[in-house]
Amino acid sequence: MTDNIGLKIHNLGKKIWPFNRSLTGEGVLKTFNELKKINSTLKIHKVASGKKVFDWIIPDEWNVKEAYIIDPSGKKICDFKKNNLHLVGYSIPVEAEFALKDLNEYLYSIPEKPNAVPYVTSYYKKSWGFCLADNQRKKLKSGKYKVVIKSTLKKGFLHYGEILIKGRTNKEVFLSTYICHPSLANNEISGPCVTIFLSKWLKELKNKKYSYRIVFVPETIGSIAYLNKNIKKMKKNIFAGFAITCVGDDRCYSYLPSRNKKSLSDKIAKHVLKNIDKNFKQYNWEDRGSDERQYCAPGVDLPVATIMRSRPGSYPEYHTSLDNLVDVVTPKGLAGGFNVLQKIIEVANQNFYPLTKIICEPFLAKRNLYPTVKDKSGSAIDNLSRLIIDTLTWCDGSHDLIDIAEEIRIPVWKLYPIIKILREQKLIKSEKFF
Amino acid sequence: MTDNIGLKIHNLGKKIWPFNRSLTGEGVLKTFNELKKINSTLKIHKVASGKKVFDWIIPDEWNVKEAYIIDPSGKKICDFKKNNLHLVGYSIPVEAEFALKDLNEYLYSIPEKPNAVPYVTSYYKKSWGFCLADNQRKKLKSGKYKVVIKSTLKKGFLHYGEILIKGRTNKEVFLSTYICHPSLANNEISGPCVTIFLSKWLKELKNKKYSYRIVFVPETIGSIAYLNKNIKKMKKNIFAGFAITCVGDDRCYSYLPSRNKKSLSDKIAKHVLKNIDKNFKQYNWEDRGSDERQYCAPGVDLPVATIMRSRPGSYPEYHTSLDNLVDVVTPKGLAGGFNVLQKIIEVANQNFYPLTKIICEPFLAKRNLYPTVKDKSGSAIDNLSRLIIDTLTWCDGSHDLIDIAEEIRIPVWKLYPIIKILREQKLIKSEKFF
Amino acid sequence: MTDNIGLKIHNLGKKIWPFNRSLTGEGVLKTFNELKKINSTLKIHKVASGKKVFDWIIPDEWNVKEAYIIDPSGKKICDFKKNNLHLVGYSIPVEAEFALKDLNEYLYSIPEKPNAVPYVTSYYKKSWGFCLADNQRKKLKSGKYKVVIKSTLKKGFLHYGEILIKGRTNKEVFLSTYICHPSLANNEISGPCVTIFLSKWLKELKNKKYSYRIVFVPETIGSIAYLNKNIKKMKKNIFAGFAITCVGDDRCYSYLPSRNKKSLSDKIAKHVLKNIDKNFKQYNWEDRGSDERQYCAPGVDLPVATIMRSRPGSYPEYHTSLDNLVDVVTPKGLAGGFNVLQKIIEVANQNFYPLTKIICEPFLAKRNLYPTVKDKSGSAIDNLSRLIIDTLTWCDGSHDLIDIAEEIRIPVWKLYPIIKILREQKLIKSEKFF
Repeated sequence: MTDNIGLKIHNLGKKIWPFNRSLTGEGVLKTFNELKKINSTLKIHKVASGKKVFDWIIPDEWNVKEAYIIDPSGKKICDFKKNNLHLVGYSIPVEAEFALKDLNEYLYSIPEKPNAVPYVTSYYKKSWGFCLADNQRKKLKSGKYKVVIKSTLKKGFLHYGEILIKGRTNKEVFLSTYICHPSLANNEISGPCVTIFLSKWLKELKNKKYSYRIVFVPETIGSIAYLNKNIKKMKKNIFAGFAITCVGDDRCYSYLPSRNKKSLSDKIAKHVLKNIDKNFKQYNWEDRGSDERQYCAPGVDLPVATIMRSRPGSYPEYHTSLDNLVDVVTPKGLAGGFNVLQKIIEVANQNFYPLTKIICEPFLAKRNLYPTVKDKSGSAIDNLSRLIIDTLTWCDGSHDLIDIAEEIRIPVWKLYPIIKILREQKLIKSEKFF
Repeated sequence: MTDNIGLKIHNLGKKIWPFNRSLTGEGVLKTFNELKKINSTLKIHKVASGKKVFDWIIPDEWNVKEAYIIDPSGKKICDFKKNNLHLVGYSIPVEAEFALKDLNEYLYSIPEKPNAVPYVTSYYKKSWGFCLADNQRKKLKSGKYKVVIKSTLKKGFLHYGEILIKGRTNKEVFLSTYICHPSLANNEISGPCVTIFLSKWLKELKNKKYSYRIVFVPETIGSIAYLNKNIKKMKKNIFAGFAITCVGDDRCYSYLPSRNKKSLSDKIAKHVLKNIDKNFKQYNWEDRGSDERQYCAPGVDLPVATIMRSRPGSYPEYHTSLDNLVDVVTPKGLAGGFNVLQKIIEVANQNFYPLTKIICEPFLAKRNLYPTVKDKSGSAIDNLSRLIIDTLTWCDGSHDLIDIAEEIRIPVWKLYPIIKILREQKLIKSEKFF
Repeated sequence: MTDNIGLKIHNLGKKIWPFNRSLTGEGVLKTFNELKKINSTLKIHKVASGKKVFDWIIPDEWNVKEAYIIDPSGKKICDFKKNNLHLVGYSIPVEAEFALKDLNEYLYSIPEKPNAVPYVTSYYKKSWGFCLADNQRKKLKSGKYKVVIKSTLKKGFLHYGEILIKGRTNKEVFLSTYICHPSLANNEISGPCVTIFLSKWLKELKNKKYSYRIVFVPETIGSIAYLNKNIKKMKKNIFAGFAITCVGDDRCYSYLPSRNKKSLSDKIAKHVLKNIDKNFKQYNWEDRGSDERQYCAPGVDLPVATIMRSRPGSYPEYHTSLDNLVDVVTPKGLAGGFNVLQKIIEVANQNFYPLTKIICEPFLAKRNLYPTVKDKSGSAIDNLSRLIIDTLTWCDGSHDLIDIAEEIRIPVWKLYPIIKILREQKLIKSEKFF
């Protein structure tokens, strides 16, 4: 099943790979259309260019018809149609000739990564440019270069997607990922692709205790716009949340805490990650870089922890054409990202503060839960009895399931069947949930 | 005096050694008769078989007249009269012949400890069996074996002992030990023998600030029965308590915290033990195994820490005939157990939160407590003055004697004479006690 | 400027070097006269001999006209006029002849430091004595020695100095140093000399948020007398305070915490010291030895941390004639002491709990505070932008400047220009100050 889910997510990634995603524009809408095929309850919202959202202004909508350079020999290079990374994001329209020397001021390459086309944007200053591999750049000969950028930058809309899955209560688990990166696989085709499949699983899940709010926004400006509209109800309802980014590579698991470090989300994330991969990397708030910056800003203070495999900026292919669906992002890597998030959501859903209904230890023998002959080693007490007793000793109403699992040093999911028995045997009652 | 007390306790141990202690029965009463000879204020209480105590039922009373096996050659083996460990605790009456193959299902031995007779019980499922050394078992020849168990299991009583020593206030220090183990020395002849001598010392102690409640119960069912009757007043009055087990061997000192880890009992136990033996072993709640399981259960939550030398289950002779009064439990080991408990009780009795009566440091010179010529090293200030000043600087009403001793890195008992001086000099007043 | 200030302080030290400072007497007044030349707002207060101050009595005033010994050859030795350390502090008047054997009981020297004249006092028991180098002592020949001490001990006054520098509020930073040591350089000519220059700098500082209370007292009895008179308003107004001692040598920086360890003064001291010298020594309350003993006594509990270079008692020349202005105390050492205290006071003055005025991150680009083209490394974000964003993320009203600096791992003084920008840009408002 896990391999299967990895392949499905990977296939979706391949479909949305070529679209020219940015803060705004058609690439974003095309991406949403593909995501909707997985979960049709995805709703698309729009915010008009020029609208003030907190300290920011929604930018103009950017679209590109074509963009390329004709070299002195008449050959078309840096063709946007072949790779949308060639064009600097939010480039203004240009049609002009340049000597190589002058053109160079508008070219971006990375000498240390000679085969990588870098990812460059200029959202908030009117500018333009082309990105190319340094190897290719070095071969450019002097002469006249013709630059063609047929782009438009005009009043339009910023779009974001939202799924609200209702559970038995209004209390919400919040998931956020971003959809503004063009042909880059881990950062960030992996996030929206894993997240739409999580939403599909959640929709089908039976008997949900909580509601789930899932958003697909352009990074920074999108989460700010979303918060600008929804902050009141978010602060009221969200008790746990996770920012999802770079969840498709196969290298490690990592986690970046919420700003306050001690939210329920942090507790869940740390418990799940260490029980899935004891070598998971724990970052600090100073390593932040994505939408957790807004969700955890002073005065916003949502309990949002960031779940990643390799952190943005921490892997060599980051923000270049090398971050692709072959070498970096794999079905297995995506399945791992999906799996860890599923486990995290399950923990949020299962968690509560159990309280024993009886005083002193229970008489397990009468419930056929205890071996009846006790030998010299005392070890006749079997694993199940021990787990029941160990769980119950912490059911004092001040330890939640994660605390209990930590006390007895097991993953919390090994407690689920024990809790089921304790409920059936009427040995515990449910206390507060968070 | 210490050696002396060790010998006295050891002699008592030898007297009660042969009695067939169990959850119930004559062996328990015989044991109480011997303990009463040390402290006649020991009161015996009884609870009827069949009574519900929290989640449990008081079991039938078990008594044994005789029990043995006649081997094919007519020789009597596994004779209960020679060693009560031979008979599985709570064995039902049997009189029948078995082929060796069939008998084997009722025999218990430990291949890895070929000379040890194991200790086995079957309290809550009607069953029977014999225990023997594996060496002996291997020599058994095929043929007919006659099994004789003349035991009775019928409505009767569970007995427990209780001593209440009144002090100036109703606040109580609680001590608990258990009396349900047959001929086993450290676990558990040592506990009741050390504890009855502690009660004798406490009875004779003058001017007791607190009262002392001391119980001798069969393990688990006994402490549950006791709690069932007394929990309300226990929760009201007990401010510190200690479970006493395995206090007779000479190997180490150890301590198992209360479930909440931070009670006054834990604070006292850790301070005393580290100042008596810096290598004492500190266990965790997950290592629990005796009546602390009930006293610290959720909803009971008494401040009970467990004081031991070698923890039950941690030493090789545990729960076998090798746990004897020669090789494992010694007068010296018992004296050590007695001494550490005495120190712990003294700390509980002495402890309070002193508050200075003066502002700034005192003028010790006018009280003849300070050297009058101060030389170049500043070290003319002698140890006594230094200790007075160091103590007084922490007499702020928020540090108790243990806190102060920890701050100045000495055992709390070295503070007692200083506190005496501070009181005589009217430099401190007593604040709250706990 | 720093070297300059070191030289100025050192010159002042040379001027006050020869005065016979003690708990009382003319040497103290002469010292104050020199300090007044640096800061004329220094006020001298007096407390009469015999007055009760808490547990103590103000001693008689001690003055010395001359003191010496005539050896058997008629040579004058141990001449108080050459070195005031020769005479035991508070020696009573004596004029008598002694055999060497009898004289020896009144002589003090240090065999392990044969060239050092020790510093000895007998404040509270009427006594007398002479101090000399052990080398000199060994050469004394038997014969008659004539002792002359022309001292007076009579009702008079204990004097202390006080400077109050008013700021915009009544909240005060408190500085205390002591002026009772005779010709000893680090302990303690350095303290009053550095402190008087700090007071001069503070007086000239513009726009002071707080007031500054600076006292020059004889150790112990002086601080007790000062507290006896002022404790109420001190407890009301002082929010941070520092005891200043041994701030003239060039060996290390060190800090002794207030008794409660967690006052704002401790927080400031630790932050400044570790950012000036990561190898600074942190002492514990058990190492205390000066007026912090009174300021932090139970019931007084002022937030006073002690700032030192080499702690009293920790260096080999301590309390001997070797603690001089040549080998131990240097202009560079004094400048270092001055500098660290200046930084500490600045931190106390600048500190507050900033609170962001905006929700989510600010749009730095519109304020020309953010690079506009973002390249592949994401590192186009320059240091200033990063520092602004990093600072603002902690402006939640619950982190003061020191907390923020600790979170982003820089010295707090690197935040001052950032805070200036944030204020100019109206991105923060000031919250509570402590």
